[in-house]
Amino acid sequence: MSIMRLDEIVARFGGRLSGDGSRVVRQVATLERAGPEEISFLANLKYRSKLSDTRAGAVIMSEELARHSPVPCIACDHPYLYFARVAQCLNPVAIAQGGIHPAATVETDLPASVSVAAGAYIGPAVRIGERCRIGPGCVIGPGAEIGDDALLHANVTIYGGCRIGARAILHSGAVIGADGFGFAREPEGERAGAWVKIPQIGGVIIGDDVEVGANTTIDRGALDDTVIEDGVKFDNQIQVGHNVRIGAHSAFAGCVGIAGSASIGRRCTVGGGAIILGHLTIADDVNISAGTLIAKSIPKPGNYTGAVPFLEHGEWLKNFARLRQLDDLADRIRALEAQLKDLAASTAKPEETT
Amino acid sequence: MSIMRLDEIVARFGGRLSGDGSRVVRQVATLERAGPEEISFLANLKYRSKLSDTRAGAVIMSEELARHSPVPCIACDHPYLYFARVAQCLNPVAIAQGGIHPAATVETDLPASVSVAAGAYIGPAVRIGERCRIGPGCVIGPGAEIGDDALLHANVTIYGGCRIGARAILHSGAVIGADGFGFAREPEGERAGAWVKIPQIGGVIIGDDVEVGANTTIDRGALDDTVIEDGVKFDNQIQVGHNVRIGAHSAFAGCVGIAGSASIGRRCTVGGGAIILGHLTIADDVNISAGTLIAKSIPKPGNYTGAVPFLEHGEWLKNFARLRQLDDLADRIRALEAQLKDLAASTAKPEETT
Amino acid sequence: MSIMRLDEIVARFGGRLSGDGSRVVRQVATLERAGPEEISFLANLKYRSKLSDTRAGAVIMSEELARHSPVPCIACDHPYLYFARVAQCLNPVAIAQGGIHPAATVETDLPASVSVAAGAYIGPAVRIGERCRIGPGCVIGPGAEIGDDALLHANVTIYGGCRIGARAILHSGAVIGADGFGFAREPEGERAGAWVKIPQIGGVIIGDDVEVGANTTIDRGALDDTVIEDGVKFDNQIQVGHNVRIGAHSAFAGCVGIAGSASIGRRCTVGGGAIILGHLTIADDVNISAGTLIAKSIPKPGNYTGAVPFLEHGEWLKNFARLRQLDDLADRIRALEAQLKDLAASTAKPEETT
Repeated sequence: MSIMRLDEIVARFGGRLSGDGSRVVRQVATLERAGPEEISFLANLKYRSKLSDTRAGAVIMSEELARHSPVPCIACDHPYLYFARVAQCLNPVAIAQGGIHPAATVETDLPASVSVAAGAYIGPAVRIGERCRIGPGCVIGPGAEIGDDALLHANVTIYGGCRIGARAILHSGAVIGADGFGFAREPEGERAGAWVKIPQIGGVIIGDDVEVGANTTIDRGALDDTVIEDGVKFDNQIQVGHNVRIGAHSAFAGCVGIAGSASIGRRCTVGGGAIILGHLTIADDVNISAGTLIAKSIPKPGNYTGAVPFLEHGEWLKNFARLRQLDDLADRIRALEAQLKDLAASTAKPEETT
Repeated sequence: MSIMRLDEIVARFGGRLSGDGSRVVRQVATLERAGPEEISFLANLKYRSKLSDTRAGAVIMSEELARHSPVPCIACDHPYLYFARVAQCLNPVAIAQGGIHPAATVETDLPASVSVAAGAYIGPAVRIGERCRIGPGCVIGPGAEIGDDALLHANVTIYGGCRIGARAILHSGAVIGADGFGFAREPEGERAGAWVKIPQIGGVIIGDDVEVGANTTIDRGALDDTVIEDGVKFDNQIQVGHNVRIGAHSAFAGCVGIAGSASIGRRCTVGGGAIILGHLTIADDVNISAGTLIAKSIPKPGNYTGAVPFLEHGEWLKNFARLRQLDDLADRIRALEAQLKDLAASTAKPEETT
Repeated sequence: MSIMRLDEIVARFGGRLSGDGSRVVRQVATLERAGPEEISFLANLKYRSKLSDTRAGAVIMSEELARHSPVPCIACDHPYLYFARVAQCLNPVAIAQGGIHPAATVETDLPASVSVAAGAYIGPAVRIGERCRIGPGCVIGPGAEIGDDALLHANVTIYGGCRIGARAILHSGAVIGADGFGFAREPEGERAGAWVKIPQIGGVIIGDDVEVGANTTIDRGALDDTVIEDGVKFDNQIQVGHNVRIGAHSAFAGCVGIAGSASIGRRCTVGGGAIILGHLTIADDVNISAGTLIAKSIPKPGNYTGAVPFLEHGEWLKNFARLRQLDDLADRIRALEAQLKDLAASTAKPEETT
């Protein structure tokens, strides 16, 4: 753990300090829990009421809130981003000690700065960059490449031939490069309906600064590669199908599924549990809400949603059963409009004729 | 495997025995498959017809059904719960033999009663309770704590610093304590849209008697801890985000996703594939149906649903396309109501005036 | 990698060759990327325009398109299936070298043709067929059985007693045989709401030629077995609950969840993210669309869908809020119909009387 003075923080990251610059902070914490050697932040006005009771050593916040702060504060334009930078400083990434644990199996040459933990297996012809840390139980298949300063937590699996950029963070249970789901079907004969596997000979190419959550899976391409550009962030339990392409700095919340050959733009965000079907294209700067199924391409930036509201179960029964009758209801509205028009015309006549 | 006489069972768990108490049962089985040394149960009236053909040595059922039993039976108030207890007696949990497999790597002191299987890695400063069984390939990070009598099946990963209570059962591929999904976004400049990682310095605290299914993931907190209270049961493939809090005895079916900072009450049940968004609060005793998206807090106990009925595809095309026109349809209904009122008024006048 | 002449391909798989039969191909590739020693295919008319620019050594396509081919082609009835067979020939499955890595732990006798990689653990009384390849970090529990020529990629877990057929392909992180999600609930007393575990004593029986995707989980049965018939294909991140039965040659896309005791027919296909509830029956040859929740049995073959269209967020707000009013809207339509009928009758009278 590190330690910083408030004036050091402001010297490094900017912002306006209000209060004693010699005050020292050792860690970040929430407004509720922070003590005098911890620094907190207030980015959401909703939580402003928590400011008055805080015991934090300092708080990062917007200029407009700064005058309300009962404790030293740093006023800045983007408090949450500022907080992220301070938090990183106070919690520096551990440096690889270097060295291969005797209970690891390594069949390639590695830089001395790389550390490989017990039970890991690294196949032949693997290239691993400087200062990488390979956790216990990780498996890296033949010919894979990993950039400098990558961190593989325990039990990550990387299939042969996949390429991963610098500063990657892969969480436990992530699987990179399993076969895509590709089969042709027997149309006739005694094996009608049986599936014939298409060998998946493409790879996975992952850019720099990508984070992959626990138990997330990214399949290798069928013929060409699956491509993840720089800075993409995946939460846990995400499935990325073969030949998907994802543009830089897009982010995906937990449980998202992306089917094969989908092409997703840059700086997109996708909410939890959303499903993106295959062979479609999503523009840059598209935001997809949680629980939404994307079944056609999205050519324009914007926010898109297809989630269904929930109801108390009895209310749901009454209302959602009507979904099966929507077309009938629409027909009846159209019929009513026609009848009403006729009726209005026919009842108007007497008045006109009188 | 154990063996019990019917009168021993009744002496231990109560209920009314009808039939020969000296009869011995060795295992539990379904009504269809049970043989004379197996005990079955009938908890759902729907399956009553299967009773007449059963060859079971005994059947556990409600008092009202007991007189229909063609075989010895135990009548009780809660047959399924009673069956659970009998099944546990006949299938006692294996006792750890104790001892560390030579192919395991253990960097801490463990009680002699703990067994650690081949390929497991246990980091420094880990505390593991009596009689725990750590399966092959498990990884337990530095400073983690596990209570007495816990069972970790193969290839479980527990990150450093997480705490898990007594009698926990963790299934293969479960990951406890990976980083929560927390990033701040660069708003401007040449890196606009890039994500800056918020170090996830909270932990995971899991109570006693919690079961975690295969490939389920529970993230560590950002600043404070993620908290799972006693007796919570998770099925497979579930995602629990950072700083989630789950009350005692809640249960989650497969493929559920729970976003960060959601707070879920006690004794809740959540059906398969449901998604619970972040920063919301769900009361005690809430039951959420499968496939439901919870996008706002639920302050009252009850059953809540937002699932969509399926249709034959052609019917679906006709009906669900109307979802895009719902607001228009509602407007047209309102217009019809207004027009009809006007028309009724205008056509009424002649009658009044005559 | 293999190498084939075009006339060898046609001799082996049929079809009509147009062009130089002595031409050699070494690999498969897309129309865009294929070079003169690669063979491509055109199965979807949508991509026909790519044919004119291809540099492929040969292209597999339907007879009707063959005359447009600028390069040698093989005309056949089912180009994609034909391509699959050629791709398999050019990318033969690696043959197990046989032998147990010194860093593996094997507590049973294995055929000499089986290869077991570093860090794998194979328990006592396991039976493994000829030429199986067991990847690094795999765990196979006591008494499990695996057929000939199976391929377990890294970090697969198979619980004790499960049976898997010949030629199975299991991808990393797959878990076969974890406990099903079965609990009885305490109805009263101080532990009211607590769950009592039902021991899961059934197994998992998987037929021949089954593929299981990365991080997919298939639970063991509660009393009887979970059964997967021959040729079933599972993509990644799928959950199969206890006592599910799946008929031969059914295929499941990523993120599908199948709840306990569901019975699914033969040759079914299920789209990504679909959820199938428990204790229901689905006929043979049923196709379920992505994102669909199946909440009741499907007795007839056909295509079934329950997915919700997405909208631009503002449009969604306007339209989907109406879902909560659907029953009210339907009531108002009914009221309008009644009023209009009355009004038509009353306004008709004057005309009749005149």
